[in-house]
Amino acid sequence: MSTQKFGAGIWHFATFVDRYATDGYGPPRSLIEMIDLAGTVDDLSVVDINYPFVDPDLSLDAVSAALTRNNLSVIGITPEIYTRQFAKGAFTNPDPGIRRLANEMCNDAARVVRHFGADYVKLWPGQDGWDYPFQVDHRKLWQASMDGVGELASQNPDLKFVIEYKPREPRVHMSYDSVARTLLGIEKIGLPNVGILLDFGHSLYGGESPADAAQLAIDHGRLFGMDVNDNLRGWDDDLIAGSVHPIELFEFFYTLRKNKWEGVWQLDQFPFREDSVQAANAAIDFLKMCERALDKLDFDAMQAAQDRQDAVATMRLAREALFTSY
Amino acid sequence: MSTQKFGAGIWHFATFVDRYATDGYGPPRSLIEMIDLAGTVDDLSVVDINYPFVDPDLSLDAVSAALTRNNLSVIGITPEIYTRQFAKGAFTNPDPGIRRLANEMCNDAARVVRHFGADYVKLWPGQDGWDYPFQVDHRKLWQASMDGVGELASQNPDLKFVIEYKPREPRVHMSYDSVARTLLGIEKIGLPNVGILLDFGHSLYGGESPADAAQLAIDHGRLFGMDVNDNLRGWDDDLIAGSVHPIELFEFFYTLRKNKWEGVWQLDQFPFREDSVQAANAAIDFLKMCERALDKLDFDAMQAAQDRQDAVATMRLAREALFTSY
Amino acid sequence: MSTQKFGAGIWHFATFVDRYATDGYGPPRSLIEMIDLAGTVDDLSVVDINYPFVDPDLSLDAVSAALTRNNLSVIGITPEIYTRQFAKGAFTNPDPGIRRLANEMCNDAARVVRHFGADYVKLWPGQDGWDYPFQVDHRKLWQASMDGVGELASQNPDLKFVIEYKPREPRVHMSYDSVARTLLGIEKIGLPNVGILLDFGHSLYGGESPADAAQLAIDHGRLFGMDVNDNLRGWDDDLIAGSVHPIELFEFFYTLRKNKWEGVWQLDQFPFREDSVQAANAAIDFLKMCERALDKLDFDAMQAAQDRQDAVATMRLAREALFTSY
Amino acid sequence: MSTQKFGAGIWHFATFVDRYATDGYGPPRSLIEMIDLAGTVDDLSVVDINYPFVDPDLSLDAVSAALTRNNLSVIGITPEIYTRQFAKGAFTNPDPGIRRLANEMCNDAARVVRHFGADYVKLWPGQDGWDYPFQVDHRKLWQASMDGVGELASQNPDLKFVIEYKPREPRVHMSYDSVARTLLGIEKIGLPNVGILLDFGHSLYGGESPADAAQLAIDHGRLFGMDVNDNLRGWDDDLIAGSVHPIELFEFFYTLRKNKWEGVWQLDQFPFREDSVQAANAAIDFLKMCERALDKLDFDAMQAAQDRQDAVATMRLAREALFTSY
Repeated sequence: MSTQKFGAGIWHFATFVDRYATDGYGPPRSLIEMIDLAGTVDDLSVVDINYPFVDPDLSLDAVSAALTRNNLSVIGITPEIYTRQFAKGAFTNPDPGIRRLANEMCNDAARVVRHFGADYVKLWPGQDGWDYPFQVDHRKLWQASMDGVGELASQNPDLKFVIEYKPREPRVHMSYDSVARTLLGIEKIGLPNVGILLDFGHSLYGGESPADAAQLAIDHGRLFGMDVNDNLRGWDDDLIAGSVHPIELFEFFYTLRKNKWEGVWQLDQFPFREDSVQAANAAIDFLKMCERALDKLDFDAMQAAQDRQDAVATMRLAREALFTSY
Repeated sequence: MSTQKFGAGIWHFATFVDRYATDGYGPPRSLIEMIDLAGTVDDLSVVDINYPFVDPDLSLDAVSAALTRNNLSVIGITPEIYTRQFAKGAFTNPDPGIRRLANEMCNDAARVVRHFGADYVKLWPGQDGWDYPFQVDHRKLWQASMDGVGELASQNPDLKFVIEYKPREPRVHMSYDSVARTLLGIEKIGLPNVGILLDFGHSLYGGESPADAAQLAIDHGRLFGMDVNDNLRGWDDDLIAGSVHPIELFEFFYTLRKNKWEGVWQLDQFPFREDSVQAANAAIDFLKMCERALDKLDFDAMQAAQDRQDAVATMRLAREALFTSY
Repeated sequence: MSTQKFGAGIWHFATFVDRYATDGYGPPRSLIEMIDLAGTVDDLSVVDINYPFVDPDLSLDAVSAALTRNNLSVIGITPEIYTRQFAKGAFTNPDPGIRRLANEMCNDAARVVRHFGADYVKLWPGQDGWDYPFQVDHRKLWQASMDGVGELASQNPDLKFVIEYKPREPRVHMSYDSVARTLLGIEKIGLPNVGILLDFGHSLYGGESPADAAQLAIDHGRLFGMDVNDNLRGWDDDLIAGSVHPIELFEFFYTLRKNKWEGVWQLDQFPFREDSVQAANAAIDFLKMCERALDKLDFDAMQAAQDRQDAVATMRLAREALFTSY
Repeated sequence: MSTQKFGAGIWHFATFVDRYATDGYGPPRSLIEMIDLAGTVDDLSVVDINYPFVDPDLSLDAVSAALTRNNLSVIGITPEIYTRQFAKGAFTNPDPGIRRLANEMCNDAARVVRHFGADYVKLWPGQDGWDYPFQVDHRKLWQASMDGVGELASQNPDLKFVIEYKPREPRVHMSYDSVARTLLGIEKIGLPNVGILLDFGHSLYGGESPADAAQLAIDHGRLFGMDVNDNLRGWDDDLIAGSVHPIELFEFFYTLRKNKWEGVWQLDQFPFREDSVQAANAAIDFLKMCERALDKLDFDAMQAAQDRQDAVATMRLAREALFTSY
């Protein structure tokens, strides 16, 4: 029987806004409503929660109560360092006062992590980067990207900080844009409590092989978390996991298993026009199919075929395991 | 002296929201405030206005007054057929009641066009399309895309309807996705008052040559309008025109001049983090540079070099004209 | 029992060259050797053959004999209108003498089609297009693209001509770049014997939904042929069919079945580093899996779910059929 | 007066082959013919030469003589580790015998570097990577990528080795795919004589900002060389430098000047259908325009505007310098 834990960003259960449907894809939902929805997913154990809460009057205790009644725990806290005041960046904002605010907000998030006994503060600096040629001094921008994370990790040595890299959006180019760039920065920061949260979709549309990205992060001892979704390789569509690229997703899980990486399999989906519970169930059903397929896959034969770069043999092994595990 | 008219979508002067900065990139602005900002741009004559207005109490007369005091007139009206209720499409919505609403909203927009003496209703069906493999019946979806536009054009034979095609966003794939697809649909609709509003950036990131797209629309007698901006060829970044791809933008204007196409040169930019008036001025300054360069360009020599596909000679002619026209 | 016929471009069994491995990915193979290899694929009935043959002394009779002994017949002939002399285009070459040569080579191919009782001349004008901004007069280029095909179709009213569109390569942009552009051209040509050969991979990396492209071509009565392969959506990688995008490939076949389109399912793969027979078998095995899945799929339920754009329901139906048909 | 040196890969003056025009885009040229062509370019000082020579009988002395009479010297030697025998990789080939061959060929190239007094051995491992999901063990592949380079650098401590990274082609994914990945590998190798040869086009179509990539490599002390060209951001088109993205190219040179990086500005273009000398002159003319623009640019004002991320101000400064320097 499966012991794999599944999780989701709590925003999966929000209703969304974009630059056109400014009235949102549905009526706004409170955090408590989102948690109650998450609780109805068939097999969900943990959630990642944004902080500060949209409702400033919402207490941590009220959130705890909602989580408890839904059998959910918190894996991470995501500080909202990408809203209006951070439009030109959090760690790299030209205004030192804003950089200070970002640091404070992340330290607040650290306290919430401790409160919930969660695993990490998740840093997603989506506004840190640039839009135009010539707009920034690239040396300074990158230095500030590293300094901002390093400062947090130094201030909170008891906690883990994970960077979720992404090629772009909302900034036209994000400074933490790829697995290799992020690892390069982390090595420079040089602290043990900074790692990567690898988003399968970010890796895919950034032109990486997510399996290769996972292996690289693991080999550097920095794969602290992950989440999955799908897209058309050109944008962060945050579609339902497995809906477009089931084989590369299976290879991603294969890489985790092979390396005995045993964290939670999380979802980061934006079901703009779908029922969020159905979308989560559809994804997790495919994840469980992958799990069964891994139990069935002949790892030795796969390794042998990979060692001779035999594309047809590896494909047949992967197909046979995956396509018989529905 | 230049007689070229310049225009902009009035949303250029809004503050924007996206799925992350849900609190917006600045405080909201009323339509009147946007018009007053547009009036401060150095050389702007016309605007395209969304309808219905965000403020339901705002009267057409109040808008007229604001336009008049800013020396602006209206070129087109863009009905908001991409907000919450149209999340699964306007013309192609599975719900016939919503399709009816879309038709009514566009007919309302037609009345506003007549009120302002504008040129066209602009249809940008950004929610008409699909997100997932298998999600839609492609025959029915495309038929509905054509029927919706055809019905409007039949109901309002005195007015022009322009379709602004775009590859994607917010839908993962839009049904009117390219110049050729749109022309194919327009030919099938078979009415004289349906044409194309060609957005330079949509064409560019859709993998087209915007100059080729303009030529094709002109050759079909369907280039009814255009607007410009820039991007990194992977997404509709709506950057300042000329900031990344000045040469292809120059070729686009060259194609218009060569064909004696004499409409307004409009902007469709989203200056999320920039001052909107400065962003408009920076774009129009480059457009005027293109205009001067066209006055200087040796069209006969260019034609002769194109007729032998001489890439080096055409490049040198274009460079010499453009890079000496600052 | 399956009655589906499978085919392949004979070049699938060649060894390849590219701009780096100019000594080729293996020793050159003669056409006869390629045919003998094709004959060893488990379930292959037809091939598409390039003409003129590399070996000018090879007779049609020798080719026929090789085909016969391998139980293969010819579905189409592909004239080589993309080699050195056509570097600046076949139908759109600036030199009228070269355009004449292209016409003659295609007429020769037509004679070979008749000789073999094949279905069509396949036109793949890979050098017709442009590389640089400003390089060509887009009106003239497109007109010549249509004229060249139209002339051939008029000269050979007894035969079918199929255009295989492709976004780019070897030209940086091909004039027949998409399904819609090609249909627009075909409608303008206005002859019944011109249609489309839809390459799944070209459609995919051109940003189309191949299922939508197939539906559109069918609705215009112009889907005369098709072939499949796979890629990473950014280039014409010609990978083994089903290796990366099994779900969209299944949707493509679903669309054909739904429309009762009953032609051959062909392969257009370039197994640079793989055994070509193994690569063909691996692809056809997946194609047969798709066939079994179509037999099992609940078409009525799928239609009903599509009619309400229910992404989760359509995904579950597709998954259940496909992932239980290994 | 300019003291900037210009260079080119000698292959710029070859005639090219691709997978379609297998007869080449013109008659083959000998290395001596290429050198004589290079000598006719208006302002070219150095070349990068492939080794082994296509003609095995060609002596180093004959090459030296040709270089001397054309006033050219050698900047680097590029071993041909991407031809047939290396189809599955040079440093990462599954066959240890082939890995040995790659090492020997690169050591041969090192001897030729010494003979010519050149600056470096250029490693472009275009066949090192993968094509399919599941095809390779990513840990082993990356380790072998680093080991192969590290072994060479250890064997030749007196020489520099530069890695020219590239996202893909001919392999569907190259192991040295980006600036950050390559720097990560170089840091792991840990030797002072391994650096980066930054190709502007590879960076651009890999989704990087080439200016940012250059800054990062400089900040790691590893920018040992560079070359330029242009493309449409989706493939390594190797178009004439400045023909599509003049502004980003200018930003790239700005970054070099700002950091007092004083190496040769080289070309890596593939003028398939153009006269190679004209193509080189057209590029170098634009490079000189950039040089003049840098002399004119107000670096302090630019820095101040960058320090506040003022996109409009930086754009205006860049435009004014560049567009007045024809």
